[in-house]
Amino acid sequence: MPSSPKITAIDALPANEAKWIEFQKISWSDQTGRPRVWEAASRKTRGKSGVDAVAISTIIRHPERKPATIVILQYRPPVNAVCVEFPAGLVDEKESPSEASVRELHEETGYKGKLKYISPTIVSDPGMSTANMQLATVEVELKEGDQEPEQQLEDGEFIERVVVPLDELYGRLEKFDKEGKVVDARLWHWAAGLHFARTML
Amino acid sequence: MPSSPKITAIDALPANEAKWIEFQKISWSDQTGRPRVWEAASRKTRGKSGVDAVAISTIIRHPERKPATIVILQYRPPVNAVCVEFPAGLVDEKESPSEASVRELHEETGYKGKLKYISPTIVSDPGMSTANMQLATVEVELKEGDQEPEQQLEDGEFIERVVVPLDELYGRLEKFDKEGKVVDARLWHWAAGLHFARTML
Repeated sequence: MPSSPKITAIDALPANEAKWIEFQKISWSDQTGRPRVWEAASRKTRGKSGVDAVAISTIIRHPERKPATIVILQYRPPVNAVCVEFPAGLVDEKESPSEASVRELHEETGYKGKLKYISPTIVSDPGMSTANMQLATVEVELKEGDQEPEQQLEDGEFIERVVVPLDELYGRLEKFDKEGKVVDARLWHWAAGLHFARTML
Repeated sequence: MPSSPKITAIDALPANEAKWIEFQKISWSDQTGRPRVWEAASRKTRGKSGVDAVAISTIIRHPERKPATIVILQYRPPVNAVCVEFPAGLVDEKESPSEASVRELHEETGYKGKLKYISPTIVSDPGMSTANMQLATVEVELKEGDQEPEQQLEDGEFIERVVVPLDELYGRLEKFDKEGKVVDARLWHWAAGLHFARTML
């Protein structure tokens, strides 16, 4: 029976112990030629593609239901909360971001889809980190009577998937927040853009 | 005459030299009770509000022009590129995120607006960082003949502002990318949600 994850200690991480991330001291000269220093965090896992991660905006089409997307819920130690995010994951050393999108969607949600589009490389938090990603759109076509597929989670992964009709997404994110979950900024922005187009333009 | 910013060196940053960010080694027990470790980067600058930063989706309304938003272009050392972002900034020690939104919009773009809405606290990259933010919607009402206002930049800030009609935003971001600039993931997601609503729903 799964229990609630808990943080037991937060310590300073010495640079020589870090396996996944590293700190960079970037020396640069600015627009006036003045020497400056910037501090940044960086992932150590970036592979041949040059892209750290992918996220997937899924569109589920069904003959009788409204178009829907999938969000995932998982506990994230850095923010000590259950986060609501688009399905996402790191790109493996030798795969392309497009391949990673279809693979991650299948593993995290069980759904097999077709890649319709993938964004250029975009940056997650460029004021403090080198992290980059691509946003994929993957379409899943369901037939009448299709069963909900099984997730393909690895040992130690605890991920809940939630199918949400697109026209309810923004309201559902507000509700998740009120329940004490925390919404990923990128998912929030996508839903806010969608909501804005539907209500304010 | 401003020249192009340049990176001159990237070194490992020792933890005891870091002024703006720090590394955390988070010890936690997972859903099965198993002890695990997670590595995260964290800003040292979070103030009383508990929120690191704000970003602003501006809506400019004008009697004769289509509704528009503002994006900013600035060189970001962590990704060694000119980034295209929503106006944004860190929340000062004693101000609220709502106050920071109106202030940052004014400083970075010159425009004075009214806060219409601010999101709950959302997290920028919760797999690797504690960073959080709120997304504000600020409305600017222009009258016929209003001049473009002056930016209020600090010494050492080089920020270009671009007013973009909302229905051209997604295409403009694609174009910025093709020109070699890099788009912030959150701005891209907002524009992609807007574009999706206009073209695929």
